[in-house]
Amino acid sequence: MRILYGKPVAENIKKEIQEMLFELNKRNKTPKIALIRIGENMDDITYEHSLKRNLKMFSIPYDSYVYAQDEDAEVLKRQIEKLNKDDEIDGIMIFRPIHPQIEQFEINETIHWKKDIDCATSYNQGKLFEKKSNLLYPCTPRAVMETLRFYGVDLVSKKCTVVGASQVVGKALAIMLIKEKATVTVCNSKTLDLKAETRDADIVICATGQAKLITKEHLRDNQVVIDVGINFDNGKISGDVDFENIDYDNIRITPVPKGVGVITTLTLIKQLVEKTLKLS
Amino acid sequence: MRILYGKPVAENIKKEIQEMLFELNKRNKTPKIALIRIGENMDDITYEHSLKRNLKMFSIPYDSYVYAQDEDAEVLKRQIEKLNKDDEIDGIMIFRPIHPQIEQFEINETIHWKKDIDCATSYNQGKLFEKKSNLLYPCTPRAVMETLRFYGVDLVSKKCTVVGASQVVGKALAIMLIKEKATVTVCNSKTLDLKAETRDADIVICATGQAKLITKEHLRDNQVVIDVGINFDNGKISGDVDFENIDYDNIRITPVPKGVGVITTLTLIKQLVEKTLKLS
Repeated sequence: MRILYGKPVAENIKKEIQEMLFELNKRNKTPKIALIRIGENMDDITYEHSLKRNLKMFSIPYDSYVYAQDEDAEVLKRQIEKLNKDDEIDGIMIFRPIHPQIEQFEINETIHWKKDIDCATSYNQGKLFEKKSNLLYPCTPRAVMETLRFYGVDLVSKKCTVVGASQVVGKALAIMLIKEKATVTVCNSKTLDLKAETRDADIVICATGQAKLITKEHLRDNQVVIDVGINFDNGKISGDVDFENIDYDNIRITPVPKGVGVITTLTLIKQLVEKTLKLS
Repeated sequence: MRILYGKPVAENIKKEIQEMLFELNKRNKTPKIALIRIGENMDDITYEHSLKRNLKMFSIPYDSYVYAQDEDAEVLKRQIEKLNKDDEIDGIMIFRPIHPQIEQFEINETIHWKKDIDCATSYNQGKLFEKKSNLLYPCTPRAVMETLRFYGVDLVSKKCTVVGASQVVGKALAIMLIKEKATVTVCNSKTLDLKAETRDADIVICATGQAKLITKEHLRDNQVVIDVGINFDNGKISGDVDFENIDYDNIRITPVPKGVGVITTLTLIKQLVEKTLKLS
């Protein structure tokens, strides 16, 4: 068994970010990001904290906006429109999902697509269907792709099974894998024989949000397993895979914690810097 | 073997369109469509002809614009913007792909999403990822869904294999099937064992553009096979399936011609009328 830790992937992305910042610096440009948090959701606050810490590490400036959970949607949209027009701001990140979700799509759609560094707009999501590369991807699927790339996992002709069909991870990731010429299967809670679907794959990617759903019986030797889940199981952080009981000799698998989760924040920053470089 | 002809599906859609038109008529509203053809591509002209014939059948008015293949993109965009603002126009249809393709995305994106009845904009394509229903779908995938619905093919927990991963059919259809809680596999030209992937499925949908690629060996009894291909093979129209040599007792299969192709034009008109009703 080989554990595919997130740390070396993260170190590599850090280096890429620094090189791009160096290039931008030569052009007298520093990317700047606006962070918008609505309400006091603990997950959002944790993510915001990690993001700010990372931005400081790269000396990337940010403006931070915090709104009450019951803030008027029109106020939020006006703020986003102001940021869209602000030439100083290169990226806008709204912590998602927005609660109450009733207006979340409308609020997300207000972001100008060129500043939509988390791929929250339908426009950027629609671009995923095109043959050519996107300017911006949803961060978690991209973190998975970065992990596969770093560990030299070729995708052409490979059988990939994605477990979980959420909008932000499963569906978007499926399209990204299809574009890389993999044969892709997407499973969901109604899949009849999940074990067969996962055992049949060269690469298994789990994004269900259910702790230890994927057991030893779902996997086999010689697979690559990417675990996107971050769940709490009896007070401990656990992935979607029952990691401790997987003992195949030649399986390669990301752990939780210390796996893909480490990379997501950096992926967001990479997208900010990368697209600023492309558009500058 | 049971042949799933397009005609009864088409008759049913015609009835639905007529009912919606009757409802719109009560509100003093007749939907109107603008057709834009660029160049003299034979496929476009054939589709345009069929569309106009059908529109006349429903007494739906249309404006028809024809531009030279080398028309300036700015002229086209200005025309689309004019149609976007025109309250008389409910839908805008540009025959695709636009040649030369270099500016096709930019031209398509100009269409206002509410008038984008063929789902040509990234915005409407991105909406496919959302949990809720779209206002508008790409017409060919929707014609497939209409066929499955008409013939009572339930999708929940079913294994669907989509052969072909194009932007307009394969990828979009995959997401639409995933939303219906099917377990969906998408194959492409790099898939190693296509026969295994198709034989393993309850429902096989072919959209490759390769005549008779799917042979008897790719299929088995008790499957539903939807053939989206319209190809020319020795001067004869042929689907992606080697239809003549399929002889399983309980297979259900759409023919080519007289299959899904009959439904696509009507699907476009249905979307025009349906969304006009929803938004009126």
